[in-house]
Amino acid sequence: MEGDVGIGLVCQNTMDGKASNGNGLEKTVPSCCLKAMACVPEDDAKCHSTVVSGWFSEPHPRSGKKGGKAVYFNNPMWPGEAHSLKVEKVLFKDKSDFQEVLVFESATYGKVLVLDGIVQLTEKDECAYQEMIAHLPLCSISSPKNVLVVGGGDGGVLREISRHSSVEVIDICEIDKMVIDVSKKFFPELAVGFDDPRVQLHIGDAAEFLRKSPEGKYDAIIVDSSDPVGPALALVEKPFFETLARALKPGGVLCNMAESMWLHTHLIEDMISICRQTFKSVHYAWSSVPTYPSGVIGFVLCSTEGPAVDFKNPINPIEKLDGAMTHKRELKFYNSDMHRAAFALPTFLRREVASLLAS
Amino acid sequence: MEGDVGIGLVCQNTMDGKASNGNGLEKTVPSCCLKAMACVPEDDAKCHSTVVSGWFSEPHPRSGKKGGKAVYFNNPMWPGEAHSLKVEKVLFKDKSDFQEVLVFESATYGKVLVLDGIVQLTEKDECAYQEMIAHLPLCSISSPKNVLVVGGGDGGVLREISRHSSVEVIDICEIDKMVIDVSKKFFPELAVGFDDPRVQLHIGDAAEFLRKSPEGKYDAIIVDSSDPVGPALALVEKPFFETLARALKPGGVLCNMAESMWLHTHLIEDMISICRQTFKSVHYAWSSVPTYPSGVIGFVLCSTEGPAVDFKNPINPIEKLDGAMTHKRELKFYNSDMHRAAFALPTFLRREVASLLAS
Repeated sequence: MEGDVGIGLVCQNTMDGKASNGNGLEKTVPSCCLKAMACVPEDDAKCHSTVVSGWFSEPHPRSGKKGGKAVYFNNPMWPGEAHSLKVEKVLFKDKSDFQEVLVFESATYGKVLVLDGIVQLTEKDECAYQEMIAHLPLCSISSPKNVLVVGGGDGGVLREISRHSSVEVIDICEIDKMVIDVSKKFFPELAVGFDDPRVQLHIGDAAEFLRKSPEGKYDAIIVDSSDPVGPALALVEKPFFETLARALKPGGVLCNMAESMWLHTHLIEDMISICRQTFKSVHYAWSSVPTYPSGVIGFVLCSTEGPAVDFKNPINPIEKLDGAMTHKRELKFYNSDMHRAAFALPTFLRREVASLLAS
Repeated sequence: MEGDVGIGLVCQNTMDGKASNGNGLEKTVPSCCLKAMACVPEDDAKCHSTVVSGWFSEPHPRSGKKGGKAVYFNNPMWPGEAHSLKVEKVLFKDKSDFQEVLVFESATYGKVLVLDGIVQLTEKDECAYQEMIAHLPLCSISSPKNVLVVGGGDGGVLREISRHSSVEVIDICEIDKMVIDVSKKFFPELAVGFDDPRVQLHIGDAAEFLRKSPEGKYDAIIVDSSDPVGPALALVEKPFFETLARALKPGGVLCNMAESMWLHTHLIEDMISICRQTFKSVHYAWSSVPTYPSGVIGFVLCSTEGPAVDFKNPINPIEKLDGAMTHKRELKFYNSDMHRAAFALPTFLRREVASLLAS
């Protein structure tokens, strides 16, 4: 979950605007999505009383270090819960044109990137998200050549795509240059993705970029976006999916970050419904990522009209790609068994979405 | 994760004893297991400065309700992190002969059971743990008849076992009667498991119970225990696994709660190694459970010498068992796809344990 790639509004303003509109916010944003409101500073955010937000919390002095208080970062999750990471040292804190950017060294998860108060990645568990969002689509098609990343300014998804030697062009459209700069400075294991000569970086709005792209250019598009409220809201609306579909080849694939099955079933249903109107086949997969809300993240995988894509049985298994397992660094999480397993859905989710999914 | 079922020591005493022994605690308990030390009240626990422990924390007043402070329960996880659940109302708080028992109504996870400061279950996500720990073993063998639950005093595992009409006897050995009483009062959807006439309740120490059990009595044993430190430490030692194996029929199966793959790889390796010395085949599976540390919990599945057991491909699929999907309440999480998927291991874990696992 990286960067802001949508309509380019500043999250702060969007939220303030909505919040001051006669409590309209609570009508337009489902209650389970309130975590996104963490981008509103605590002083102003009277409407999200159940979220422990803010950059830091200071626990009881007795549980702190001798001679000083321990400092925790509260990762706002769902209303009614919070996940706190102990801060060893704040490494960077600034406001870009689009969002608050924070980097800190945590006690046990390595360095942590936070955008608008929400943890985007930690060094400990980024492997799960980056590897799954990249290889679920790329291992589902033969010899992907042109790939687009929407968002993904930290470079981690690029690092994963570059394992595929068949790929010739890796376009990335990230709206916030500060995310890229910060990643290059503090997250070299992710930013290494930018070093690949196949990567072409485009700073700007993804919808605009896609409108200018030739029709049918890409074999795969990976949408590595923020949560679908605020600036990234446009990225879960039908026109954006139509733009994505237009940019894909026949039989091309889309992989879109798609929330937690435990917390946001209705958003998942909405996204699948919208995709079904545009794509030939739509599937849902998920992965364990400890520092994301409820410890999981989902992906919607779609393919356009054209050659059939069997997402659940990778036609292009990573284990058979020359050097892919060790390119730049060893794979840590993904493998073909994990690929197939990712499409197994808990019964409660299957009940909600089974009728929407079809190939 | 339920009750204390081991050697019957009071956690408080065990921990105090070790902690006062010239810092011996940090030598005997791996650093990643410090969460178990949350059973030591904060005032006394100088040694676990990185864990936010204690029953409650009170966040910044501005983020609380109007006219009062919001109260959060801090679920100690790994050193350096904590997961907080908002408390609506404390329903029960007492100390049994074995542990502190707390029940509260949370804002968004339903009622929560806490033992010695560690969340054991919430109404929102208990389905994942209970269904997986019960059906992974029971669906891997044909017509299970005699089943033993070690721990599991909340009754949730019993509820799941009772879906299997082939089962004739369900023994349960739980050391702490207060857990059962509390579950019957506050968690009727779990305690309903005790209503099954096939259930025979034994209050006491599991190792002692097993020593008195006839050899080869059980088709399946499910160990639904606390974390393997303190009172439950004996449950991850070789003699206990030998006792379990002795109580199983040839081709009988054991399913043992086995920690988080993200946090406790070394404990998983240890447990698999020990099991390999006693059992014919040993496998590792895992499930998403949002309120457990890192959002996952693992299971070690073992079978004794005798007819081969293919854990990864359930021979006794729940979908084909008459009425099993809806018995007492609808299945929420488990299904045969989830069963197979549970055995897919991330690459980092596979590297560590692949050489230990074999069938």
